[in-house]
Amino acid sequence: MNIRDIADIAGVGVSTVSRVINNHPDVKVSTREKVLKIIEEYNYIPNNSARVLKKANTNYIGLLVKGIYNPFFYEMINIIGSIIASAGYSMLYEQGDYKIYQDVDNIISFSNEKKLRGVICLGGNFIDLTDESFSSLNIPVVLTSVNTVSKLGKKTYSSVGIDNVKAAYEATSYLIELGHKNIAIILGKDDDMGATWWRFNGYKKALAEHNINLKEEYILVGEYESEKSYEVTKKLLQEDNDVTAIFALSDIMAVGCARAVVDSNLKLGKDISLVGFDGLDYSKFYTPAITTVKQPRKLMAETSAKLLLSLIKNETENEHILLDTKLIKRESCNKIL
Amino acid sequence: MNIRDIADIAGVGVSTVSRVINNHPDVKVSTREKVLKIIEEYNYIPNNSARVLKKANTNYIGLLVKGIYNPFFYEMINIIGSIIASAGYSMLYEQGDYKIYQDVDNIISFSNEKKLRGVICLGGNFIDLTDESFSSLNIPVVLTSVNTVSKLGKKTYSSVGIDNVKAAYEATSYLIELGHKNIAIILGKDDDMGATWWRFNGYKKALAEHNINLKEEYILVGEYESEKSYEVTKKLLQEDNDVTAIFALSDIMAVGCARAVVDSNLKLGKDISLVGFDGLDYSKFYTPAITTVKQPRKLMAETSAKLLLSLIKNETENEHILLDTKLIKRESCNKIL
Repeated sequence: MNIRDIADIAGVGVSTVSRVINNHPDVKVSTREKVLKIIEEYNYIPNNSARVLKKANTNYIGLLVKGIYNPFFYEMINIIGSIIASAGYSMLYEQGDYKIYQDVDNIISFSNEKKLRGVICLGGNFIDLTDESFSSLNIPVVLTSVNTVSKLGKKTYSSVGIDNVKAAYEATSYLIELGHKNIAIILGKDDDMGATWWRFNGYKKALAEHNINLKEEYILVGEYESEKSYEVTKKLLQEDNDVTAIFALSDIMAVGCARAVVDSNLKLGKDISLVGFDGLDYSKFYTPAITTVKQPRKLMAETSAKLLLSLIKNETENEHILLDTKLIKRESCNKIL
Repeated sequence: MNIRDIADIAGVGVSTVSRVINNHPDVKVSTREKVLKIIEEYNYIPNNSARVLKKANTNYIGLLVKGIYNPFFYEMINIIGSIIASAGYSMLYEQGDYKIYQDVDNIISFSNEKKLRGVICLGGNFIDLTDESFSSLNIPVVLTSVNTVSKLGKKTYSSVGIDNVKAAYEATSYLIELGHKNIAIILGKDDDMGATWWRFNGYKKALAEHNINLKEEYILVGEYESEKSYEVTKKLLQEDNDVTAIFALSDIMAVGCARAVVDSNLKLGKDISLVGFDGLDYSKFYTPAITTVKQPRKLMAETSAKLLLSLIKNETENEHILLDTKLIKRESCNKIL
């Protein structure tokens, strides 16, 4: 009894039996059941039995999360998890800091090792994408809230995100419209080729359009932390009396920044205007409430999970979806008279 | 060739071979490898081959998270995930709201379905524990940040948490020491038999010791949301002029509460004192900074993951660990003169 016999009895090809044994996604449920029944009936054991015994696996979807302490992702993880669960899959969760999972190889080994049915990556940079990046993977990949610099390989994966350049351009333009010219920016990481890089480009674009020079001393790095953002803002306000507005590229950083303004004996929303990014709840309840760029994180999570499920079922091709952000104007910004 | 032959050749018992085939945890690595090698060599297939092919599984540890949008848990999930990963396990993640996974049955079916090696439950109530609750499970269970009301079954699971009664008692006593007598409390859920219930008891204990009557109108419910907490606080401040202090049982709720004080034309830290719970970063950066009960969430996460790994390796017995909280005094509280 070999794999060919099983294939003959089942009336399918050898490759189909192989796919069933190796638990590949692209086999019809009815075919899979028929083949498994025959395997059981004839007590057939594949050559690589012990290996298969160890490896054979079920309905796992992988979620790779990058940016360890980003509360922005937390709600998204839960939404993705519940959509995946409703569809009968389980979520295998892995996270990494900004050094790990920098490149595609890790996604591929994660997928193969765990015999995943699909992968969603939340956050990260993926600066090194090429046409071949995901071509060896036979499962769908959705990159969510990931901003790739490369335009290559777009047919081999899907993405769901926001237009970071546009969002940052709008926020900066708003500050300029209010009369601000000396606008500092607090970046996440200085070597971040993802969100920070694109948002920084949006900021530069708005300045350039209004003939405002980019000042080196107004480019700060807050490490996506309140504490670090507090420190760099305080230092800036001590050294520079001209700055009148700050654009922090995350709400966590904006909160640290807000408190630094207060502790520098300046009035937030009067002496210094502040715009955050993300649209987390506590910006709204801060005193004064903080203007922010709201990301549609529920919609982003839902869209990602549903897209992945459609891709697994072969109902759709890879797509690249950009969702709209919204500048929410609150008390932390004012007009320069 | 049957299971007995394999056992004879390997020089182990039949039950050991069975455990290897079914991927049970309690087999030495060297024994497991030897048995698998022999299974492969002799092309042995267990009777329930196809079933095993579908079910055989690897190194999964389950993480059940309750309280969907609790950012307090997010950092803990990441710490647990990385410790689990370093030990060579993968994390299967499931979450539920306060209605799901109310009872033990769900943990048991999750564990059995996924062939988990161990489970950590983050949050939840578990009001119905008995001596038999986990007795059918042959894998370890750690309940983290879970406060059980029942004292039964403690030998069948481990727990890592804080002393919620003591923590809330200390916070309330601090407000009383500052001269406050009219102290409102914002509970999470009114039917919550977990953290809220215990903390409410700590609050009542402190009031009773100082002969302060418990007032029905001072017991509010904030649903663990900033928005809801904002609403109930605003309503309270409109209706009652005597209240001078508020104890919110989570920092998320405290932030909503803080803003409600401001919007009621009262001064936070002067007209109204406020204490939160959890010790999230943004309490520190709020203006004024909010006094809070800091939970040792990193230590809680580390302790839980390490305890589970020790239990899996049979290196320890079930334990019940209470970690210390710390009242962090900030600007939101003041003395009544």
